Amino acid sequence: MKRICKTIVPKEEFINITDEVQEEISSFDPNYNGLIIVYSKHTTACIRLLENETLLKKDMHDFMERLASSNCLYRHDDLEHRDVPPEERRNGYSHLRAMLLNHQEVIPVINGKLDLGKWQKIFYIECDLGKEDRTYNIIIL
Amino acid sequence: MKRICKTIVPKEEFINITDEVQEEISSFDPNYNGLIIVYSKHTTACIRLLENETLLKKDMHDFMERLASSNCLYRHDDLEHRDVPPEERRNGYSHLRAMLLNHQEVIPVINGKLDLGKWQKIFYIECDLGKEDRTYNIIIL
Amino acid sequence: MKRICKTIVPKEEFINITDEVQEEISSFDPNYNGLIIVYSKHTTACIRLLENETLLKKDMHDFMERLASSNCLYRHDDLEHRDVPPEERRNGYSHLRAMLLNHQEVIPVINGKLDLGKWQKIFYIECDLGKEDRTYNIIIL
Repeated sequence: MKRICKTIVPKEEFINITDEVQEEISSFDPNYNGLIIVYSKHTTACIRLLENETLLKKDMHDFMERLASSNCLYRHDDLEHRDVPPEERRNGYSHLRAMLLNHQEVIPVINGKLDLGKWQKIFYIECDLGKEDRTYNIIIL
Repeated sequence: MKRICKTIVPKEEFINITDEVQEEISSFDPNYNGLIIVYSKHTTACIRLLENETLLKKDMHDFMERLASSNCLYRHDDLEHRDVPPEERRNGYSHLRAMLLNHQEVIPVINGKLDLGKWQKIFYIECDLGKEDRTYNIIIL
Repeated sequence: MKRICKTIVPKEEFINITDEVQEEISSFDPNYNGLIIVYSKHTTACIRLLENETLLKKDMHDFMERLASSNCLYRHDDLEHRDVPPEERRNGYSHLRAMLLNHQEVIPVINGKLDLGKWQKIFYIECDLGKEDRTYNIIIL
């Protein structure tokens, strides 16, 4: 089992990491057969298989905004009632979105290639845009 | 690791594939102990464990319709602004639903039997009903 | 492959089971490297990685209530039209929530420790509070 940690600087919500993940597999073993897990250890960053289409990503942004608006005040953002520094991020909405989107994908690899559909790409989804020092991990079993 | 590709012709949204998956495991090894992954390579078809109850499936349909209505126009459906043929399907809502429902389930198998609960069934969920030439895959590790 | 079944008596919706899961791994093999799967065999109980923050759990409760209200009557709750005893639980909303939250997490373990982020905890989420005789399972590969 090999674990690879990749750093990422999210400048947008939906970041296509498919090529990066494929490169790691290829340099590990170009004929690998087995599973990989791509996962985030952040509570507000997710991993998901999505189509990489510009307008669809805007729809997805709006959809998430509609489900868990970034303009509402959540209890989690009521910093006076939490034991946190005053500069703590107000990211209640990010947690709610991440709850729906999940932090991992288990993906089969066949003869060294990610077994994805034609339109499936692996996305790192940043639900708390503005955060720095982000990473995601790949486990090759 | 064995990969099995099953074709499917979705005539309804929620298709119970439990027996089919169990049969594939039984014919692979009736005493298999390990994991399987059931997954879809379509961006608008999902795999999920659900109870197979007729009225509940209607509730689930309505729930998805309420979260991501098939009667709204999404940017993804604005075909003039995309590089696609005019007969491209208007399935923005399907992508949004699939984003929430996910494409895979990892399921333990114990002594050749899917380790599911009494009411859990494996469902292929077609978020873009009308699509043909659909498949799903089973990986037996 | 080892399967461990844990019983649980849900007195609240969000139950942090991280320490319990870690203990099972440690007693299995304190230097284990590999995957585990934590999963529920109930159709209305989920497993999810979330931050364990009191106010956030209230936000999450409200979020679920907003997405699938426990005060609506769902078709699944129309017991006269189902072949069930009259004391059957009215838990349509629980199924809808579970559909979004999923029943399992696949989690890497490195040198005997769950590879979770600083704020990630493993939660058993009871979508049908009031149910007794609940369990969740851990598979150590």
